[in-house]
Amino acid sequence: MRIAVDAMGGDQAPTKILDGALQALELLDPDDQLILVGNQQLIEQHAADALKAAGPRVRIEHASQVITMDDSPVEAIRGKRDSSIVRMVKLAKDGHADALISAGNTGALVAAGVLMLKPLAGVERPGIAVFLPSSKGAVMLCDAGANTQPKPAHLHQYAVMAALYVKATRNVENPSVAILNIGTEEEKGTPLVKEARELLAADKSLNFTGYVESREIPNHPADVIITDGFTGNVVLKLVEGWSAALFKTLQKEAAAEGPELLEKLKPVMARIAKRYDHEEYGGALLLGVQGTFLKVHGSAGARAIKNAIAAAKSISRLNVNAQIESRLSPTQ
Amino acid sequence: MRIAVDAMGGDQAPTKILDGALQALELLDPDDQLILVGNQQLIEQHAADALKAAGPRVRIEHASQVITMDDSPVEAIRGKRDSSIVRMVKLAKDGHADALISAGNTGALVAAGVLMLKPLAGVERPGIAVFLPSSKGAVMLCDAGANTQPKPAHLHQYAVMAALYVKATRNVENPSVAILNIGTEEEKGTPLVKEARELLAADKSLNFTGYVESREIPNHPADVIITDGFTGNVVLKLVEGWSAALFKTLQKEAAAEGPELLEKLKPVMARIAKRYDHEEYGGALLLGVQGTFLKVHGSAGARAIKNAIAAAKSISRLNVNAQIESRLSPTQ
Repeated sequence: MRIAVDAMGGDQAPTKILDGALQALELLDPDDQLILVGNQQLIEQHAADALKAAGPRVRIEHASQVITMDDSPVEAIRGKRDSSIVRMVKLAKDGHADALISAGNTGALVAAGVLMLKPLAGVERPGIAVFLPSSKGAVMLCDAGANTQPKPAHLHQYAVMAALYVKATRNVENPSVAILNIGTEEEKGTPLVKEARELLAADKSLNFTGYVESREIPNHPADVIITDGFTGNVVLKLVEGWSAALFKTLQKEAAAEGPELLEKLKPVMARIAKRYDHEEYGGALLLGVQGTFLKVHGSAGARAIKNAIAAAKSISRLNVNAQIESRLSPTQ
Repeated sequence: MRIAVDAMGGDQAPTKILDGALQALELLDPDDQLILVGNQQLIEQHAADALKAAGPRVRIEHASQVITMDDSPVEAIRGKRDSSIVRMVKLAKDGHADALISAGNTGALVAAGVLMLKPLAGVERPGIAVFLPSSKGAVMLCDAGANTQPKPAHLHQYAVMAALYVKATRNVENPSVAILNIGTEEEKGTPLVKEARELLAADKSLNFTGYVESREIPNHPADVIITDGFTGNVVLKLVEGWSAALFKTLQKEAAAEGPELLEKLKPVMARIAKRYDHEEYGGALLLGVQGTFLKVHGSAGARAIKNAIAAAKSISRLNVNAQIESRLSPTQ
């Protein structure tokens, strides 16, 4: 398979992105190809030796522009036609790449994915799936920001797609699926949530368990939690911000007790950080488009990129997209 | 003033609620009256001596029914006419109480408040305001669940009401107000968020600072954050759940290092817990109705009830409702 990596996206681009991508070669098959998308000169400067060693397993797709975190997504996609994101997505669109990985501007990636890539047969709107840490392994949350005003039918499609992904990638036989709501009683919530509930309950292929409240997310109330893209994005960013704030406070307060306590806490905090670390989870997925499209966190370093490439490889091998089409396409 | 307390609401009712209420007498003026709403026999059993000592400063309003956490809000309000919540709200409706305090079923309280109490002149929809902990003092979030499908004009009213409350109760001269969104760029978000942004920006009486992302909440990005009641409720419950989960994990991991470390961590954790403890904040407010209406957390103990009574007293004294009416009432 051909895996394209956006060498220019993320806080640590291009150096750490390139390091992670080239380290991932050891995880790939001999006939897999890595496509590094970005400024050719910069890439060659940083990775001359590794490129020489890799030979035809790695090639560079030159892109002269970069979409920054401050760029307006849709404008950037239209204005920066020679950016690494647009070039990378175009590779997939034209059938030259099977998987895409970027740590760049999420909005631009989603916009490029939604505007340029063909949705899978039967899929109305692609959705972003992310993994949230919990006491019993990761919870997949979808949508985390692709579709801020979904229809009930979109939430149903997210449920189907996310359940198939979790089943395939996490070895969960019959993933439980819940809808995020502000109460667990049937009459709670907006019309969107209530109508989605009916659609999910009526789909006997889903292991639908009803509503969950956000308070329960860290206790793993379901394998998959479905929500609209506005709420999902707020949840994702709040979890990140709240964890970081509590860690910072803990460090500060422990330091106030003396350097000895802080020292002893280090292994404890490292274990907790590992459990709550998004880099462990290999990124977010754009569900419902052709190919495998992974968005890695903006702060991703070499390890996260390497993990994402490994994840993309195994997702492609599982062929989840074909399963999604066979469930959602009306002609199947 | 007359402060009615729901003796039957919350996990620790009635004993701890009564303890807190009676302890609050020392903070009140001699001519203030406390009204304990609930089962007369239970209340007299638990607090016989204190009631005798308090004399006419405390009276009991009998209510034979209790709305539980499992009751459906609107059905409970209609079906349990002799519940402590309905009786308590009726006291305010009929002009017999100036402030209401309960740790009971939030949905039922809000429903009772919205259905039974007169909104302030000019207020279209009451909203729930809560205080979230942050690194620089509390952030007021509104709406936290009263109005899950607001119009842009409702969000504007929440901004005006919350800013007046923060100004009056927290001594913040010109409270900054922001709208919760999934990005800080102008073009981000739903039509609701964008239209609300225009209304808030056009209101020169507000210190409106634009959009904030949920990730920034623990860093106190503004004194007041405005959102729809669905998102606000998800945020509130996620903050509670996430803090609890991280604390539990910390305790478990520290214990794995040995009992000594856990012992040394106790004062550290106590300080952090105090900062992130909702009981410190005196509860949620129902903004936009006659009187002062405080919802205390369901797990509230005596201290939270005492704090809430003190808060109700100072809020009433500041007469924020008159300020709200003079800003929002079209006839003023």
